Amino acid sequence: MTLPSLTSTSIVLVGAGNLATHLGKALFRQGFPILQVYSRTEASARSLAEAVEASSYTTSIEGIATDAAIYIAALKDDALMQLRQQLTEGRRKALWLHTAGSLPMRVWEGCADRYGVLYPMQTFSKQREVDFRHIPIFWESRLPEDGALLQQIASRLSQSVYETSSEQRKQLHLAAVLCCNFTNHLYALAAELLQRQQLPFEAMLPLIDETARKVHELSPQAAQTGPAVRYDRSVIDTHLQMLQQQPDIQQLYQLLTDSIHRKAEKKLFIS
Amino acid sequence: MTLPSLTSTSIVLVGAGNLATHLGKALFRQGFPILQVYSRTEASARSLAEAVEASSYTTSIEGIATDAAIYIAALKDDALMQLRQQLTEGRRKALWLHTAGSLPMRVWEGCADRYGVLYPMQTFSKQREVDFRHIPIFWESRLPEDGALLQQIASRLSQSVYETSSEQRKQLHLAAVLCCNFTNHLYALAAELLQRQQLPFEAMLPLIDETARKVHELSPQAAQTGPAVRYDRSVIDTHLQMLQQQPDIQQLYQLLTDSIHRKAEKKLFIS
Repeated sequence: MTLPSLTSTSIVLVGAGNLATHLGKALFRQGFPILQVYSRTEASARSLAEAVEASSYTTSIEGIATDAAIYIAALKDDALMQLRQQLTEGRRKALWLHTAGSLPMRVWEGCADRYGVLYPMQTFSKQREVDFRHIPIFWESRLPEDGALLQQIASRLSQSVYETSSEQRKQLHLAAVLCCNFTNHLYALAAELLQRQQLPFEAMLPLIDETARKVHELSPQAAQTGPAVRYDRSVIDTHLQMLQQQPDIQQLYQLLTDSIHRKAEKKLFIS
Repeated sequence: MTLPSLTSTSIVLVGAGNLATHLGKALFRQGFPILQVYSRTEASARSLAEAVEASSYTTSIEGIATDAAIYIAALKDDALMQLRQQLTEGRRKALWLHTAGSLPMRVWEGCADRYGVLYPMQTFSKQREVDFRHIPIFWESRLPEDGALLQQIASRLSQSVYETSSEQRKQLHLAAVLCCNFTNHLYALAAELLQRQQLPFEAMLPLIDETARKVHELSPQAAQTGPAVRYDRSVIDTHLQMLQQQPDIQQLYQLLTDSIHRKAEKKLFIS
């Protein structure tokens, strides 16, 4: 099997959000030619096209180039589902990829002959650069020869590249929402509580860092500390009392405390 | 005001749990003589006494030395409340400290003449060494001269030392539970979900690290990404569906998603 030269593999980025921006820049840095950027929003399309030195950008689906080798659709799931027919029309011989954690590969079925998924699992914000080499990339491909190409491309971007089924990817995405989005929201709630008392959120950073570092060495269950796991009723009651004016946070506090406690009890019961 | 020489400041550790162990070792490394370790559990008392080269250890409150300069009580809140009278009896001229986030300093009132709090805010597990220099220490003292001593002692242990009221410390502790214990529990729930699918938790580490690093630069609210904040209904529904056999995690997913969404809406409304 002969693979095409990677640097002649022209790419169209369909979407210019956080993920498209970081992935596009990483591809560009590795020498992949970005042919075009599509976004509904002209400013986003232009800005990303400039950053990756794309030949052109477009805000209309009809304006999307028909001669690219690979189309990477990095859109909201709903948008991809709505647009996939229109996107692939007249372009179905190319390799079509989406980047979504929770959409199965088969959403391309009937739309294109060659298709797959390239899912970099990370939290991307435009304001912050990330080192793509440390981002795990999970790929899936309908055809084995496209799989080999995806493995090659992903390996140029990252040290951690895995072939993963749609079912596994969905599980990884759910776990990622817990470890990243929900975790970050707990930081946000803490920041809100501290702000009310004129205390700086920065005081939390050593603790946040150590909490993340710890699970490199210990399992999260072994790493657990604090009032919930040792069932320190007096601390728990004090905290619930403090949250009486914020019933939403109070409810979360109660549920998470119960959940920690239950998990610890189960462990005691088993061991 | 003349401060006593720090290395002649003999200390008794009352408690030998995670916090007592790490604080005791940090004090020992900085040259503070640890006179004695008390713990109900002989193995814990002996093990910590050996680690900090204490002259003795004891498992009975009557056996606690009466001639130390400082007693550091690192106990569960309930235990401290129960034992404080008995602990300080015949030792009330010494400086009595507790290390609890949520207990006010005044729990010592009537028990001792000189008292205060030394609260290192970190997650301590016995299996893992931590660098005390990066742990914020919050102290409080009844008498100004003891405050100066606490500032001196804490500054030998850490670069981040703050005088904080009981009310502020309580707020810091609550925020710490969110940023550390609850965050770690989300890691544990993710690990559980992944394990069911034979997927390694290690795949989450780059994401966990970046989530922690991000809030050094961006506010948690600005750092938020994922299906909840962009209100990607199709992903949210997929995830809720996947959690049908785990109603506890499903409920947490729903609450945290709603909370993220509400916070994002409020921001849109304000800006």
